[in-house]
Amino acid sequence: MNKDFSSIKALTFDVFGTVVDWRTSIIRECTELGESKGVSADWAAFANKWRGGYAPAMDQVRRGEIPWASIDELHRMVLERLLDEFNITELTEDEKVHLNKAWHRLSPWPDSVEGLLRLKEKYIVTTLSNGNISLLVNMAKHSGLLWDCILSSELAKHYKPDKEVYLTAASLLDLEPKEIMMAAAHRDDLEAASALGLKTAYISRPLEFGPDGKTDETQDMPFDIVARDILDLAEKLGV
Amino acid sequence: MNKDFSSIKALTFDVFGTVVDWRTSIIRECTELGESKGVSADWAAFANKWRGGYAPAMDQVRRGEIPWASIDELHRMVLERLLDEFNITELTEDEKVHLNKAWHRLSPWPDSVEGLLRLKEKYIVTTLSNGNISLLVNMAKHSGLLWDCILSSELAKHYKPDKEVYLTAASLLDLEPKEIMMAAAHRDDLEAASALGLKTAYISRPLEFGPDGKTDETQDMPFDIVARDILDLAEKLGV
Repeated sequence: MNKDFSSIKALTFDVFGTVVDWRTSIIRECTELGESKGVSADWAAFANKWRGGYAPAMDQVRRGEIPWASIDELHRMVLERLLDEFNITELTEDEKVHLNKAWHRLSPWPDSVEGLLRLKEKYIVTTLSNGNISLLVNMAKHSGLLWDCILSSELAKHYKPDKEVYLTAASLLDLEPKEIMMAAAHRDDLEAASALGLKTAYISRPLEFGPDGKTDETQDMPFDIVARDILDLAEKLGV
Repeated sequence: MNKDFSSIKALTFDVFGTVVDWRTSIIRECTELGESKGVSADWAAFANKWRGGYAPAMDQVRRGEIPWASIDELHRMVLERLLDEFNITELTEDEKVHLNKAWHRLSPWPDSVEGLLRLKEKYIVTTLSNGNISLLVNMAKHSGLLWDCILSSELAKHYKPDKEVYLTAASLLDLEPKEIMMAAAHRDDLEAASALGLKTAYISRPLEFGPDGKTDETQDMPFDIVARDILDLAEKLGV
């Protein structure tokens, strides 16, 4: 099957899980902080629950139960709950602030930095993440991710997969949806983008949720490209 | 006088005139297009008037006489008037679209690319321009300007020097005004930033309006830094 990607001018990337390995990074930071404070816990479970708390928190925003809140704020809300649940009482306010910003210091998957660099030769390469702008900027500087532009749900005051996020990105880039390819390791993100006319690239991240974790991969992958990683996406786009 | 710049985390840059030499670039593109179409005109005057038409056009937006319009749209509005005034009737719609996008292809001043790179070692370095996001992204790719982030008046739906622009930038960067230094070759931009608590750096661009042009430099320069160019700014910030 030959596909025509000649209309594409920009690639918009989901970030958590697609470009950076949130799980390993969060476990690492929690373990380090735990060791320095003499606190032990099942940090893998802690990381999974921290990440897991974020979709329900976004839903609360979506339903208008709480006013617009950034991912930093939602992460902090979930963190407070988890510290309670894990009975961790040793952290000072400064340590909690620092730990919450671990999400600004996530490490990229091994192919991400080079893959994005290659794609930048031909395309506008931007984030399109539920992470807030400052988080994405800090992460990019921390990890050497050279984005052309930082776009975020924060600019639409809606969270993906709400359509406003993709349409705001298209408007800010002054592009038609068909001129944009959304790249993500998550089906709901790509399905929402596709419904609006964006092209889609599924990036396989089998370890996003750990060695025993579940991904969105099935037999049925109705996306324009299914790539092993970001370098493979570059390859498939002929860059 | 020793100044303390240790609180600064981000530098926000005005772009037209401060980072890129709009005048030379616009004259060059107009001349090339004119030659290819057999049209001659005083392109330096044309460039100055094109640029000159933009402040009154922003004022129309500011006063609510016209709805929010991007700089691309304002440039096109002014372009149509100028083509009339200069009695230039030879351009097709495609050629007008291309010419209007000359503002996406402005060349940096000789120190800009290297100066920004140096500043990026220590600071978040972002645009804070009246140019729309797509213009700034295209310009960055065209000119090799490696911004950490693209911020624009477009995100505030207000034009500088309206306060909303600076406050939106601070909010998106999650920084206090005093943690941000605004860099510009224009007094009104820096005065507005300073009134909100941002630090200010005046960048001298004696040729912005041409060899006989007037700049904002006087004896009285009440800014935190007055720099010869962006490399000098890096020097003065100890980068």
